Amino acid sequence: MTSLGDMFGAAEVGNRIDKATFKRDVPKVRAELLQMQRAIAQSPLAPVVHIGGGDELGKVSALGTLLGWLDARGVESVALPAPSDEERERPRFWRFWRLLPPRGQMAVLIGSWYTNPIVDRVYGRMDDVTFEREMRRIRDFERMLVQEGVPIIKFWLHLPKSVQKKRLAKVKRDPASRWLVGEEAWTYFKRYDRFRSVAEAALRLTSTGVAPWHVVESANDRYRNLTVATTLIAALREAQEVWASSRAQQGRRRRAAAPKPAKINVIRQLDLSVTIETEDYEAQLVRQSAKLGRLARQLHEAGRSMILAFEGPDAAGKGSAIRRLAAAMDPRLYRVISVGAPTDEESARPYLWRFWRHLPRQGRVTIYDRSWYGRVLVERLEGFAARDEWSRAYAEINEFEAQLSEFGIVLLKFWLAISPEEQLRRFRDRQTTPYKQYKITEEDWRNRRKWDAYEAAACDMIERTSTSHAPWVLVEAEDKRWARVKVLKTVCSRLADALTA
Amino acid sequence: MTSLGDMFGAAEVGNRIDKATFKRDVPKVRAELLQMQRAIAQSPLAPVVHIGGGDELGKVSALGTLLGWLDARGVESVALPAPSDEERERPRFWRFWRLLPPRGQMAVLIGSWYTNPIVDRVYGRMDDVTFEREMRRIRDFERMLVQEGVPIIKFWLHLPKSVQKKRLAKVKRDPASRWLVGEEAWTYFKRYDRFRSVAEAALRLTSTGVAPWHVVESANDRYRNLTVATTLIAALREAQEVWASSRAQQGRRRRAAAPKPAKINVIRQLDLSVTIETEDYEAQLVRQSAKLGRLARQLHEAGRSMILAFEGPDAAGKGSAIRRLAAAMDPRLYRVISVGAPTDEESARPYLWRFWRHLPRQGRVTIYDRSWYGRVLVERLEGFAARDEWSRAYAEINEFEAQLSEFGIVLLKFWLAISPEEQLRRFRDRQTTPYKQYKITEEDWRNRRKWDAYEAAACDMIERTSTSHAPWVLVEAEDKRWARVKVLKTVCSRLADALTA
Repeated sequence: MTSLGDMFGAAEVGNRIDKATFKRDVPKVRAELLQMQRAIAQSPLAPVVHIGGGDELGKVSALGTLLGWLDARGVESVALPAPSDEERERPRFWRFWRLLPPRGQMAVLIGSWYTNPIVDRVYGRMDDVTFEREMRRIRDFERMLVQEGVPIIKFWLHLPKSVQKKRLAKVKRDPASRWLVGEEAWTYFKRYDRFRSVAEAALRLTSTGVAPWHVVESANDRYRNLTVATTLIAALREAQEVWASSRAQQGRRRRAAAPKPAKINVIRQLDLSVTIETEDYEAQLVRQSAKLGRLARQLHEAGRSMILAFEGPDAAGKGSAIRRLAAAMDPRLYRVISVGAPTDEESARPYLWRFWRHLPRQGRVTIYDRSWYGRVLVERLEGFAARDEWSRAYAEINEFEAQLSEFGIVLLKFWLAISPEEQLRRFRDRQTTPYKQYKITEEDWRNRRKWDAYEAAACDMIERTSTSHAPWVLVEAEDKRWARVKVLKTVCSRLADALTA
Repeated sequence: MTSLGDMFGAAEVGNRIDKATFKRDVPKVRAELLQMQRAIAQSPLAPVVHIGGGDELGKVSALGTLLGWLDARGVESVALPAPSDEERERPRFWRFWRLLPPRGQMAVLIGSWYTNPIVDRVYGRMDDVTFEREMRRIRDFERMLVQEGVPIIKFWLHLPKSVQKKRLAKVKRDPASRWLVGEEAWTYFKRYDRFRSVAEAALRLTSTGVAPWHVVESANDRYRNLTVATTLIAALREAQEVWASSRAQQGRRRRAAAPKPAKINVIRQLDLSVTIETEDYEAQLVRQSAKLGRLARQLHEAGRSMILAFEGPDAAGKGSAIRRLAAAMDPRLYRVISVGAPTDEESARPYLWRFWRHLPRQGRVTIYDRSWYGRVLVERLEGFAARDEWSRAYAEINEFEAQLSEFGIVLLKFWLAISPEEQLRRFRDRQTTPYKQYKITEEDWRNRRKWDAYEAAACDMIERTSTSHAPWVLVEAEDKRWARVKVLKTVCSRLADALTA
């Protein structure tokens, strides 16, 4: 029984293309596809084409056709098998971030972020609310990708139940294509109706303006493959046009923002006069370090991981606080990632990519010396990110951190605060101490002149990204030793909570 | 019983440093270490520091000390745990290539390419000849790295048997350090003498002029850590000096080489007049494609992988031959890697790194459209590689391919040969056919003017890198269709042999 009311009704009408028409149309389609691919190669776009649906053979055939028609030098095909252990030890989306192509290239996927939620929902391993939450998460993920220059072009290859049945019966008789299909196809077919309704819900929830679904009737090889190709051409062309016009608008808004801090704000409210006595400092350092060593080991044994991010003005003491933390842990368990200018592989991808790539495996700790917050600090203030880009970054960052935290990663963010006078003292000290001179550059002085704007941006950031699972910890860092002890204590108490929760 | 004759004798004499001396020396050592690290940051060097030996606690302590003294922004520590499945599915050295730092940065390793051979030899899972072969392989690997700008600085932390015994007994009583040591330490201690003699053999075989071992007596914490640091400073300084002077010499020899081809050579001996009739071509294409599809599936099921590399003059038909091959295989099983200019992450590492990173997992196929042979072709002829670099590349490539082949990877290399006249016809065709115009650039014409030099370099390459496990297949490509069929047939026959062997 076909319910003509659902999204697949129009893909059960018996669309087909005859041999002669196919033969006539293919050369033109191929030429256009190559032309679009060359246009993409010269653009800052990195399209991801997703081929989904219940027709395994059809997906393989469509993928094969696209790869045959496209220039291999600009396209990568990705068939996602079962996740590797390196993938299982990180949040679920890590493997998808991993496969994003660099600007100018394309990726064609079979299997994607839709596969698991759909299968899990069909088999009742995921309830309706969680399923919907997953679909909304996917929607946000895709919107972010599109805005970052990764057009998402999604095909759903649909077979009516009766055709699917015949197809599987035929496959059973043919050893070669049986292998292409995989054992689970028969099990899945028994739940055809359930798959259909779950898929329908998935498609409805995730067919957005920026990343619409293209449902393609898959029964006829020629119709399916030609339709996929022509739809792809149109979608790539549109993506290019959208990008060009949004860039033109953005260009006008790309100038640096120079926000002014409020008279009273979270940073100015800090009491920077707090200090710690030498004796007390040394005792605390020893005690807290020992405690951290024990807790980091328990974290490792529990197969959990931890991420610490440090931000703050130049010379606030991020490096020395990190050194004290690191010294307390088994050096085999942590990595310090110092975030500077991106490499070209990094700047060819969405800005969060370079942070995703360094996520720790289970049982490990990653410390970021400066972090993804650069997007709403230096990139905002220097105009490297357009207004659209940094202003949507708060939500993207919150989503990123929510995924880390859901996976069980202990996450803390530190803002080390000093006064402009203290910074000046430290800069001068660096200039006059021979082995510290390398630490001070013209850029530090330039940043210093923008102190107020940085402070205002930091307040915006703290306000918009302080969550219970990923809180900002404001650290009075005028007294370096006070700051080190506070950082150590905070990490210990957070770890202790996380490990007993 | 201490045999003073072995490499560890000098590390059993009771070296120690008292607290006062340590306290006095540390600031100077730290300052020097930071200074060397900054010098490295501005150099094209990417040192790898290896901390080995039987003293687990000592290794962790030395690593922690180095990380505490160095600037975290230029050093990465790597403690190699058991290989992940992604690592196990590739040749053994893949995981070591993976961790090479970019130029200007350092890596400090605990666990390395020595670990497995030594443990396997001790437990008799590896015989003497294989062990020696492994050690020679390591020697070549390290020499290559050093020549490519990756100084290898190796420490062996040694404990006399009696000290080791006391140390383990103490560890047993202290839960914190017991965890640092790991269960196998006690099992290993039972074989102390055997470990000592195998390690001694390993060190003797791999202590070379370019990568000597530094054996450090490990009993006293202060002595060990300070000795490691001061030795490291000296080694980094020496590496810098050696590099600077070798660069100065190389500079004089960096001009492009323009070899002349011999009157008769393997390429000129090819009969380029061979052709295939249309009817025969179509029949063969269908038959061989079906065969390749079947064989690729068997390869997948056998968990083996295949690597195909294509070289030849511009317009020789590499792309179209690759397309025919690809079309015959399940698109989920292969990747085509098009080799162009390296990214900055790639050019910051030894030249083979960018090829290692794309090695297929088990059951997969990688096709390289141009390959690591660029080193001895375009890089040689354009002077991108100095004489030393391209002339030692033949041996490095042979070693690379031997490792692939030993791992069971089926490997084939194709040289597609056309005449200069045919190339000219194809260039002109590209210029006058609208949708082919993008394929022809000024660079193609420039390369064409160096035809003779390229041919001579190709002959050198074929002569020096044709091995039975990784043969060059010369393909008469004047008739494109002949070439496609020959490539298909050759891959099929090689696969069939490999799968029945």
